Amino acid sequence: MKKKITIAIDAMGGEDAPKKNIEGLNIFLNKNKFKNDFVIHLYGNKLILDKELSKLGISSDLVKIIHSDSVVSDEETPLTAIKNSKNTSMWNSINAQVDGEADISLSAGNTGVLFVISKMILKMMNKVSRPALAGLWPSKKGMSVVLDLGANIECDENNLVDFSEMGAALFKSIFPNQKPYVSLLNIGSEEIKGTEVLKKTYAKLKSLSSDKNFIFKGYIEGNKLMDGETNVIVTDGFTGNVALKTAEGTAKFVVDSLKKSLTENIFSKLSLIFSYFSLKKFKSKLDPNKYNGAIFLGLNGPVVKSHGSTSEVGFYYSIDLCYKIIKGNLMDQIKSNLDHLNGRD
Amino acid sequence: MKKKITIAIDAMGGEDAPKKNIEGLNIFLNKNKFKNDFVIHLYGNKLILDKELSKLGISSDLVKIIHSDSVVSDEETPLTAIKNSKNTSMWNSINAQVDGEADISLSAGNTGVLFVISKMILKMMNKVSRPALAGLWPSKKGMSVVLDLGANIECDENNLVDFSEMGAALFKSIFPNQKPYVSLLNIGSEEIKGTEVLKKTYAKLKSLSSDKNFIFKGYIEGNKLMDGETNVIVTDGFTGNVALKTAEGTAKFVVDSLKKSLTENIFSKLSLIFSYFSLKKFKSKLDPNKYNGAIFLGLNGPVVKSHGSTSEVGFYYSIDLCYKIIKGNLMDQIKSNLDHLNGRD
Repeated sequence: MKKKITIAIDAMGGEDAPKKNIEGLNIFLNKNKFKNDFVIHLYGNKLILDKELSKLGISSDLVKIIHSDSVVSDEETPLTAIKNSKNTSMWNSINAQVDGEADISLSAGNTGVLFVISKMILKMMNKVSRPALAGLWPSKKGMSVVLDLGANIECDENNLVDFSEMGAALFKSIFPNQKPYVSLLNIGSEEIKGTEVLKKTYAKLKSLSSDKNFIFKGYIEGNKLMDGETNVIVTDGFTGNVALKTAEGTAKFVVDSLKKSLTENIFSKLSLIFSYFSLKKFKSKLDPNKYNGAIFLGLNGPVVKSHGSTSEVGFYYSIDLCYKIIKGNLMDQIKSNLDHLNGRD
Repeated sequence: MKKKITIAIDAMGGEDAPKKNIEGLNIFLNKNKFKNDFVIHLYGNKLILDKELSKLGISSDLVKIIHSDSVVSDEETPLTAIKNSKNTSMWNSINAQVDGEADISLSAGNTGVLFVISKMILKMMNKVSRPALAGLWPSKKGMSVVLDLGANIECDENNLVDFSEMGAALFKSIFPNQKPYVSLLNIGSEEIKGTEVLKKTYAKLKSLSSDKNFIFKGYIEGNKLMDGETNVIVTDGFTGNVALKTAEGTAKFVVDSLKKSLTENIFSKLSLIFSYFSLKKFKSKLDPNKYNGAIFLGLNGPVVKSHGSTSEVGFYYSIDLCYKIIKGNLMDQIKSNLDHLNGRD
């Protein structure tokens, strides 16, 4: 019998936890009721979690609670966390991977603390220069992976080459039927453009162009990010964070302006009746819930960070992302990409 | 009698020049037919320009042609431009400022060449560490100024402080009735976040907080850029270029998705009849023509760069921007801001 995919969830992390986390789990269980290749381990206060589960009538033998006394508070800083967060639901959900009791960990709790203790507990992968935070981004052709989103504000060419290999592995694990196309985010598409670090990264990735793990597509500019010609976008954490948040802000600005226009008078309101289903579809494509879940890559085990303020639907998507990543053998893909890279250097 | 605002236009630069440039000018003349505080100097081939003007029936004594034999080609590089671009329409339109024949220069031609020869002809302003490229950006409350958009891919704290002073001066010249609020683009809003350069810039700008020329609002994240709480956004040219292009790409992606949804079936098409005027208003707010025209700041005279591929309406907006900038005394505002800064150092 093949081993089941085990997802360790910090059930107490995030706004409105554990209610929202359990509601998200309920959606996941309903959508996957005909599958039995997974188990969910919930870390948190057993009394409270039992109550939340029974409220929703969840009595699946695919869900197991592992009691944790305490919770990482929002006020905790990365500096104090190492001392204070032991045996919290977050800590235990990550530590489960060390004990071989889980394949992946998910939390919507304190981001800074999650990074620090993940790194401390799981440790860096052999051959990886720095860990990175990767996210999903909509495109005309589906979804892209973007990294780094803020774990490293300054990066050198070795970091960016590692991120390319890890990002390609992540893409492949989530979308097994698609080929990863890697691009470097820059302010022009010509080879001579950009910082020295980008030029060196370009040269390194170009020399790997016979790589079977991904195809290097050169530089990409911000206005082409969503065209879908490329699906793994690599940049330093400062630029990636600014780009992601600017895209979020712009999408919100455009949609808000549209809403305002479409509700300003009786005619435009009338139009909403006719366009109801079309607008619903439009909204669905841009639904931020679908992109909830950033993946912390480069450690000896994957950790997914859900937005603390996401909805239950967003939390469901991050559980689904955990399932897909393990189903797609993320860790083996990363190892194979990095081995390949290492053999060439 | 007060001196008239003189705008020197490179009539031969940009795609579809001079036709588009003259059509843009025609819009400007029609919208300002009751004003007589400006003169337009067109630089380019007199024969061709005379023909284009008469095609549109422009016979205003506010328009004067200054013949230039040659044009900067799109293939010209900044390296060869200094030798090859003398006496082109672009060169002459900038040089007009040195001779005191114009207050501002506008071109839609080769960007790299425009920067190099502008810097060579007009020279850097005293006390400015580096020139910057500034642009306009829509917000919930109107428009913001963003700089640098790509003139400097790496910047130190002195550059960013200069950009703050120049950006505030530009904002004030375009929107004389509004107070400039300056923010630094960063990946978090807390004082401890970001690169060393940003932290140093933050400290310098904070110490200028009694500044009467602008109010420093601290850090801003990408998702807040369009909220309008701040109206001068300062960053290095790499980050600014990525942010601007990502916003452009995202707005296009959202609007394209909307278009697709609203034309997919008979009901959604029907809805367009009722929402026609509302959608038109929505479209108008996001119209890229309105944001056409980047301003090259830090030289002894302002140079405006129009997109090469803009429409005649976009070119009109960049002429209008030139008019506003001079009407608002940009150069005096910059000098006053920089003097003030210098007095404090």
